[in-house]
Amino acid sequence: MEAKRHDRILLAHGGGGQLSDELVRHTILPRLQNDVLSELADSARLDIDSASLCFTTDSYVVKPLFFNGGDIGKLAVCGTINDLAVAGAKPVALSLSLIIETGFDFKLLEKILDSISRTAKSSGVDIVTGDTKTVEAGAADKIFINTAGIGVRPKGVELGLNKIKAGDKILINGTIGDHGMTIISQREDMKFQSQLKSDCSSLSGLICQLLEDTEGIRFMRDPTRGGLAVTLNDISRGTGFSVEICEEDIAINPTVQAAADMLGFDVLNIANEGKFAAIISPESAGQCLELCRKNQLGKKASIIGEIVESRDVPVVEMVTRIGGRRIVQMPYGRELPRIC
Amino acid sequence: MEAKRHDRILLAHGGGGQLSDELVRHTILPRLQNDVLSELADSARLDIDSASLCFTTDSYVVKPLFFNGGDIGKLAVCGTINDLAVAGAKPVALSLSLIIETGFDFKLLEKILDSISRTAKSSGVDIVTGDTKTVEAGAADKIFINTAGIGVRPKGVELGLNKIKAGDKILINGTIGDHGMTIISQREDMKFQSQLKSDCSSLSGLICQLLEDTEGIRFMRDPTRGGLAVTLNDISRGTGFSVEICEEDIAINPTVQAAADMLGFDVLNIANEGKFAAIISPESAGQCLELCRKNQLGKKASIIGEIVESRDVPVVEMVTRIGGRRIVQMPYGRELPRIC
Repeated sequence: MEAKRHDRILLAHGGGGQLSDELVRHTILPRLQNDVLSELADSARLDIDSASLCFTTDSYVVKPLFFNGGDIGKLAVCGTINDLAVAGAKPVALSLSLIIETGFDFKLLEKILDSISRTAKSSGVDIVTGDTKTVEAGAADKIFINTAGIGVRPKGVELGLNKIKAGDKILINGTIGDHGMTIISQREDMKFQSQLKSDCSSLSGLICQLLEDTEGIRFMRDPTRGGLAVTLNDISRGTGFSVEICEEDIAINPTVQAAADMLGFDVLNIANEGKFAAIISPESAGQCLELCRKNQLGKKASIIGEIVESRDVPVVEMVTRIGGRRIVQMPYGRELPRIC
Repeated sequence: MEAKRHDRILLAHGGGGQLSDELVRHTILPRLQNDVLSELADSARLDIDSASLCFTTDSYVVKPLFFNGGDIGKLAVCGTINDLAVAGAKPVALSLSLIIETGFDFKLLEKILDSISRTAKSSGVDIVTGDTKTVEAGAADKIFINTAGIGVRPKGVELGLNKIKAGDKILINGTIGDHGMTIISQREDMKFQSQLKSDCSSLSGLICQLLEDTEGIRFMRDPTRGGLAVTLNDISRGTGFSVEICEEDIAINPTVQAAADMLGFDVLNIANEGKFAAIISPESAGQCLELCRKNQLGKKASIIGEIVESRDVPVVEMVTRIGGRRIVQMPYGRELPRIC
């Protein structure tokens, strides 16, 4: 069928970068082709009777299962809630499906379920349906979790890449790279791992408030696998506009920066689990920023750049601290496997 | 919290029998408690605006990935469609989430995706959202698939254990045990494996037709993991009624029976993937049977027994071919791991 570049699945096929993108666009999409799926949004939009719904799914294979700031259970609830929230939907119901390796410690399972319960409750979402499968020892790595979610889009909320215009501002609700660097430093058993903490959190409260109290939000996405670099490249490619961001406006926790430097990562490629990038009309950007900063999850929010007309091809460009400019490329994908 | 009987997860915790039931009732439910989940139905019922929805999820870990009559992809689509169908809902959208082991053959992935596509198309359901994760070689067994699904409940269709009355008939749309015995015989590399074929199929067409053209269907369930024995015991326990079935009215493919006898399995405990058990008012049972038999998926349909008042405690009892009676117990769960 398509010209394949690989005979076997590589870790990078799940990394959120170029190879993931190729897998989805060349292998999966052509087979499952339909208008809703082809949008490749964080959530699919479905209109059933008078209900405007969003529907999304994610499997979680994070390693280690417990990390500073969260665990696979919290991540599985927050991640799916966030995919609904950035699509402008209020999450109403989640499913929960477990694949458990034989021999997995019952106490750890209970701890994960407690975390799932706590996170769902505090986000006001019920887990309404589920499934449990077991596999032999060695056939899975401890536990994998899938959550799917249904959300309701409030009347009047219409977000989409097609709403984006040149001059729109790019807002992010805080520091980047915290989740990914926490996972990798814990996995590498690095010295400063205790100073790192995942940003894993449910964004639906903050996002719902922004959508209710402000106008002018055109599009949102949560920069998870592949980090901000993937999100901004997706926006640029999806709109034909270019993106210009300013290095000094992007908040980065100094320990995250130090860890990334030491391991040779670009923080722009590192996953976040409690962040959204919002594209906002220039008139509303200030008000959104102000509202964000009043919220626990948006204290370090900043406007990091804007949408600009493309001179030639659409690109993501960053003005560096020393005043230079560099292209922010779509990462290849091998950076950080099993980050979520 | 609860008195635990096991420190570690056993294969039987995912087998669909007693241990699965304990895991769900003692460990999962108390933590995630809400009215919808507590029904433990095949699908959760959700009412959003004017839309009456069903929502369900299942992860698929079947081994081998390809078997006579199907493959993991076909199973993942049919299984979730069937969970919606037996809840009385017309499936409208599926999600698809893949967990793939590094090194997995790209051609097999394409074959699985083709099967998913074919099955979804022929059932008239779109896959509208998805996710792909990769894990290192050895961290998963080739590929695991999760599908979640949304269905719409037509007006007037209200199925539930609480609708069941003494005297209701139990209909099944064909032979039992085909799926489970196909998988296990292929896994054990048994001689007669080529004569066995999984019944894996999408039941939504047949079920929608039955619900449209007849009245009197009170409840349906697809006897997957744990087989007909689990389904009937669930019905008995959930209603307080007893269930009486007649061995000679239960259709079993002779090769399935031979394989089960050879391996020491009770066919009543073996998984099906293209069967439903329907509880039907005595007045409508004949009409339903007739309709079923006209359908490719119901040619060997039969009435296998009825709901009766419990004399003492609710039990499932089978009148054997030689006229004896035996209790059909809830299987413990160790029978057949990774059957779906």
